[in-house]
Amino acid sequence: MLAPWRSPLSSAIHHNRSKPYSRYFQLATVNPSGYPANRTVVFRGFLDDEQNQLKVITDARSAKIQDIEYQPLAEACWYFTKTREQFRISGKLQLVTVAETDLDLQKARKITWHELSDSARSQFAWPDPAQPMADKSAFEVEQLDPHNPLDNFYLLLLTPQKVDHLQLKGDPQQRCLYTLQAEQTWTHQAVNP
Amino acid sequence: MLAPWRSPLSSAIHHNRSKPYSRYFQLATVNPSGYPANRTVVFRGFLDDEQNQLKVITDARSAKIQDIEYQPLAEACWYFTKTREQFRISGKLQLVTVAETDLDLQKARKITWHELSDSARSQFAWPDPAQPMADKSAFEVEQLDPHNPLDNFYLLLLTPQKVDHLQLKGDPQQRCLYTLQAEQTWTHQAVNP
Repeated sequence: MLAPWRSPLSSAIHHNRSKPYSRYFQLATVNPSGYPANRTVVFRGFLDDEQNQLKVITDARSAKIQDIEYQPLAEACWYFTKTREQFRISGKLQLVTVAETDLDLQKARKITWHELSDSARSQFAWPDPAQPMADKSAFEVEQLDPHNPLDNFYLLLLTPQKVDHLQLKGDPQQRCLYTLQAEQTWTHQAVNP
Repeated sequence: MLAPWRSPLSSAIHHNRSKPYSRYFQLATVNPSGYPANRTVVFRGFLDDEQNQLKVITDARSAKIQDIEYQPLAEACWYFTKTREQFRISGKLQLVTVAETDLDLQKARKITWHELSDSARSQFAWPDPAQPMADKSAFEVEQLDPHNPLDNFYLLLLTPQKVDHLQLKGDPQQRCLYTLQAEQTWTHQAVNP
């Protein structure tokens, strides 16, 4: 079932579509030392209309993999600059790796790889992230096969459990909390901003 | 001493100054249940040039207060849309409340209150956040004294310990890690993006 926050979120994506960065949001996790970690990621669409999972991609070599293996909880903070509204989406993360045995998820991983630009794909063949800067030549990657993801290409799914939608436009501001209840039903309530 | 990341950050703020939302960043904390929390806040400048503390403001009634009291660690993720660069700033948070006895900090709290717009100040007199939506009339607040902060107005300081600066423009992308060492000295290293 399409969650009730999907409609305002789709509307925000639509009304901000002239700005490519409107598809970026900040994903917070907790690292194994208990520190919060926060980075910008690119929204790659929804996996399906049942569990309302948001798709992003990541590299097996990224530090966030350890965070997720330590604790798969996250909160995405997605601010839309044009319409001045924020969605805070908290839920569970799931990595879809080369070893994924669920055929639908493995297929989704391959489709997502295929949909990337050549330059986005090539980053998965770059030298190890966060290591001392390699020679420029190490970043000159030949074009990768769009049909076969590199092993270190992971699909990352966020299954929302709570969504907090704040609209700064309006006097007063509008805020609505959506909460996932048992049996995949969502409730929502207008609250003070 | 001005940290070495202050210069590229000032440059980013300057080059993106035409966009008011360039002063917003996402602040991640960990809540008492161990869940990451992430929300957009407004940068209110630096406290001083010694400890390079970033100023934001918060309400005593905000959920983030419990997070900070539970564990004062945070990571700010600050993405600049025009210059396409990201600063991840991790460090410790400090609340400056009405009970603050450090005179310099109490003064900074009062100055920050004074620098707010009337409408920003009035939000501190709004009904309790995240409670069921109150009547519209409850949000009609008379103008507040700019010289006397309300008790629930807190200054929030982020003292950085690590800064990760990523520039998406350029081929390859440029990334630099800054780390605070003993005795308040910073080291930095160019790393793979």
